[in-house]
Amino acid sequence: MKSLKVFSDTAFGKAALTLLQAGVAPHELIMADAPATSALKRAGAEPLLLDVEIIFGQPDIESIRVSPRLRWVHLTSAGYTRYDTAEFRALAAERGLVVTNSTGVYAEPCAQHIAAFMLANARILPLALRTQCDVGTPQWLKLRRESKLLQKQTVIILGYGGIAMRLVEMLKPFDMHITAYRRKARGNENVPVVTLSELPQALGQADHVVNVLPANQESEQFINAERLAQMKPGAVLYNVGRGTTVDQEALVAALNSGHLGAAWLDVTEPEPLPAGHPLLSASNCFITPHIAGGHHNEPEMLVRHFLANLRRYEAGEELVDRIL
Amino acid sequence: MKSLKVFSDTAFGKAALTLLQAGVAPHELIMADAPATSALKRAGAEPLLLDVEIIFGQPDIESIRVSPRLRWVHLTSAGYTRYDTAEFRALAAERGLVVTNSTGVYAEPCAQHIAAFMLANARILPLALRTQCDVGTPQWLKLRRESKLLQKQTVIILGYGGIAMRLVEMLKPFDMHITAYRRKARGNENVPVVTLSELPQALGQADHVVNVLPANQESEQFINAERLAQMKPGAVLYNVGRGTTVDQEALVAALNSGHLGAAWLDVTEPEPLPAGHPLLSASNCFITPHIAGGHHNEPEMLVRHFLANLRRYEAGEELVDRIL
Repeated sequence: MKSLKVFSDTAFGKAALTLLQAGVAPHELIMADAPATSALKRAGAEPLLLDVEIIFGQPDIESIRVSPRLRWVHLTSAGYTRYDTAEFRALAAERGLVVTNSTGVYAEPCAQHIAAFMLANARILPLALRTQCDVGTPQWLKLRRESKLLQKQTVIILGYGGIAMRLVEMLKPFDMHITAYRRKARGNENVPVVTLSELPQALGQADHVVNVLPANQESEQFINAERLAQMKPGAVLYNVGRGTTVDQEALVAALNSGHLGAAWLDVTEPEPLPAGHPLLSASNCFITPHIAGGHHNEPEMLVRHFLANLRRYEAGEELVDRIL
Repeated sequence: MKSLKVFSDTAFGKAALTLLQAGVAPHELIMADAPATSALKRAGAEPLLLDVEIIFGQPDIESIRVSPRLRWVHLTSAGYTRYDTAEFRALAAERGLVVTNSTGVYAEPCAQHIAAFMLANARILPLALRTQCDVGTPQWLKLRRESKLLQKQTVIILGYGGIAMRLVEMLKPFDMHITAYRRKARGNENVPVVTLSELPQALGQADHVVNVLPANQESEQFINAERLAQMKPGAVLYNVGRGTTVDQEALVAALNSGHLGAAWLDVTEPEPLPAGHPLLSASNCFITPHIAGGHHNEPEMLVRHFLANLRRYEAGEELVDRIL
């Protein structure tokens, strides 16, 4: 196969960079001078792109537009809000561009983060970890009796993809009732799928509403006052998707009125929330700072995931985690 | 079958008491005037016991000794420290007394508590929940990169019984390497069993040491300075058994030196720890106040578990969760 030019705008540490260099060779690897650090930051246009066939990173749309030889973009994130537009889809179609993302890398940590949230909620860990009390006291009885077992509880996952698929597997030993809401059922789901018309009823039955919707026009404020009102009293909302999918003002009201039992959020809008934001002091609202996808060897995993796709690209096989 | 006299010294709420009364009828149910609240409190001798065949609760040894018609004691706890003595075993043997406990009720919440601890530790929840930071900052990168995936990590469970069995099932989706240490392997374990001579090596390989040992003479300070030193640097210790199985002074040293990565404890000695106790401020030491066995319908579950055994007793079948 002819030698390819691969461009990356990602700031990898030494271990991941060495892995990338070894894996890309004998193809040419070009590293950007000013790397992007996240899907959430816009990278500047890169003149180097004029000559490359593959980009591994977070290129901006303009860079893609002006690179005539580009055939494949592999994103270092699972989210792809910047690329989820009619304009970009038209450009990709016109140019025959393949776009893949790193869902395969992030599904596992994100699903573990949600499982951690669900179990920490069931065992009331935030309160229990700051309580020292004697056995038999009212404080102790309250903690013991308000702890919930996951068995037989009902879960609805909003947004079905790699994260949902893994979460369903992780929850299997707990014998829960799980359904997923998806724009369009594809038949490959490992749980029953709920459509938009069935969603109000499903929300009314769920003890746990797990939101992993990506950010796009359709999901903007998807969790609004109306849908929050449809949720079962005492239900718990989890969000490890994007902050923009939730009407935060309505969420604060639903928490402070006691309608929702709790909210566990890894994403907010903006990030971080400004000091004094009402979500920070809302009743039973627990927030982690957009870390659900993180794990100790994340950069190496990103590189390995890309390299596995590069091998498929060389062989003319179908790429995994293809989004366009 | 002839009518039985059943005595209970447990202070049940209305729902559980109604369930117990209905389930015991047409046998006679006698409730104590001064109920015990926990296995950890000693109940006073109960003259009423002179006439009963079955006790459901936490009778003290003297009460059992002076009740000539007693045939079966069903404990409302999983722990049975008070009854785990040579003296009591001799008494039970001499009298043909059957003793059962409520392990079946507590295995599930305890295993879920440990799973919550393990996932909260992996996702660094205690720190992450109090951190608000911008994406890409050093603080953010640290949280993301220090989060660990459970996959391929090694677990040793000290003490194999109902809790361990359920925990092993819960950890299945995470593809971990799990072994259990047990005084004597019985062949019914769902993981490989490690004996005492193999324990030092097993401790040296484990990322997670889960201690669910019951309190007895053999387990007293089982986790001592020597065994802590045998553990792999960075290992995490969990204890939902009994506080007396750990040398707490040695644990404080192992945490503060950085040898252990963290400790997650639901039990301590004493409970609660007095203000200023060094474990309360030890590095990465997270403590909940003996609530691992609790859950929202615990009293009803205890009653249902006893009644199911009562049905077996009536039918002359083998009782479940028999300890003597």
